[in-house]
Amino acid sequence: MICDLMNTAVLYSGGKDSSLIAIILKKMGFNPKLMNANFGVFKSYTPAMKSAKSLLFDFDVLELDKEILEKGVDMIIKDGFPNNGIDYIHKEVIENLSDLEYGIIADGTRRDDRVPKLDENEIKSLEDRKNIQYLNLNGFGYKTIDTIVNNLFEFKKEKSNKENSSDYEVEIRCLIDERGFKSSEIFPEHYQTRVVGFKIGD
Amino acid sequence: MICDLMNTAVLYSGGKDSSLIAIILKKMGFNPKLMNANFGVFKSYTPAMKSAKSLLFDFDVLELDKEILEKGVDMIIKDGFPNNGIDYIHKEVIENLSDLEYGIIADGTRRDDRVPKLDENEIKSLEDRKNIQYLNLNGFGYKTIDTIVNNLFEFKKEKSNKENSSDYEVEIRCLIDERGFKSSEIFPEHYQTRVVGFKIGD
Repeated sequence: MICDLMNTAVLYSGGKDSSLIAIILKKMGFNPKLMNANFGVFKSYTPAMKSAKSLLFDFDVLELDKEILEKGVDMIIKDGFPNNGIDYIHKEVIENLSDLEYGIIADGTRRDDRVPKLDENEIKSLEDRKNIQYLNLNGFGYKTIDTIVNNLFEFKKEKSNKENSSDYEVEIRCLIDERGFKSSEIFPEHYQTRVVGFKIGD
Repeated sequence: MICDLMNTAVLYSGGKDSSLIAIILKKMGFNPKLMNANFGVFKSYTPAMKSAKSLLFDFDVLELDKEILEKGVDMIIKDGFPNNGIDYIHKEVIENLSDLEYGIIADGTRRDDRVPKLDENEIKSLEDRKNIQYLNLNGFGYKTIDTIVNNLFEFKKEKSNKENSSDYEVEIRCLIDERGFKSSEIFPEHYQTRVVGFKIGD
């Protein structure tokens, strides 16, 4: 029922937040394509692709210039911490996604996220310059998101590694290590949750 | 499937925004009760009740102390414009709604709303003090909301008057006029849109 101009894309990692914004859009009548950004350094999109397929969404890789990742990694190595570099990469990804054929683009940023996150002025500028609509989960806190997604989805929780994650972090780590630095000193070990399907009954 | 602790209430006017957050919660598995605040000055909840029933939601009136409205109207008359008074009333309404039996409360505040709106610190304080979760449409701009609701709902668009609106404005106007001021000088005439049912086929 939504017209073709309202082609919709969600920047997708396979995690809780981006899965929730995708399912909200679907239940509101859209047929969003789930997109995972990739910079040609490592095929880190496989976990996101599997998650997307487990939720019956179309999926595609958003292939982007390695230069974006290089510049983000420059910032991370200079800073000694990842925030600014990841924020830069995310904003470049959103800019590039906005240039495609989608009238609405979304990501899973939630209320309590700090980085990466577009502020209100950046969103307004993006929407005006690119003639698109952008949305995210900024009205939802993590507790509410947990309540909803635990009700809707099955998950796999694992120690994050480059085979089970489709976050920017995977390719960033590869590039840091390639340059002779230790990515493990910049990114602490952590657990990550990946959606693997609907709860039985949905 | 959602446990009883996650009883959910939406502060509801019958307009686009509060109808959208209500339907999102419903499609995510909750059974929200739609609540319209009333201060005992005028039975302004009837339009919201009709809208709620047209969307097959449970509805109730949130009966509140007239003193809240009085204090809001004091501010509006002193300021000569409604923003601060409405913001005060909305925040008192949210505080009172948080004291009821609901684990999750929501309103239809969207990204481009200025007033009334809870900022991030107010939300955090509310959630901590009241041990509840609060959500709104802060991730969505008005264009996206229009796109979605035009696809889901039927509307009636009319010049706003006290018989067809359940906004705070109705009782505020009554009280301003009761006090011998002219509410029409503070609130300009405007059109308002009320949800009257689902689009056929939904």
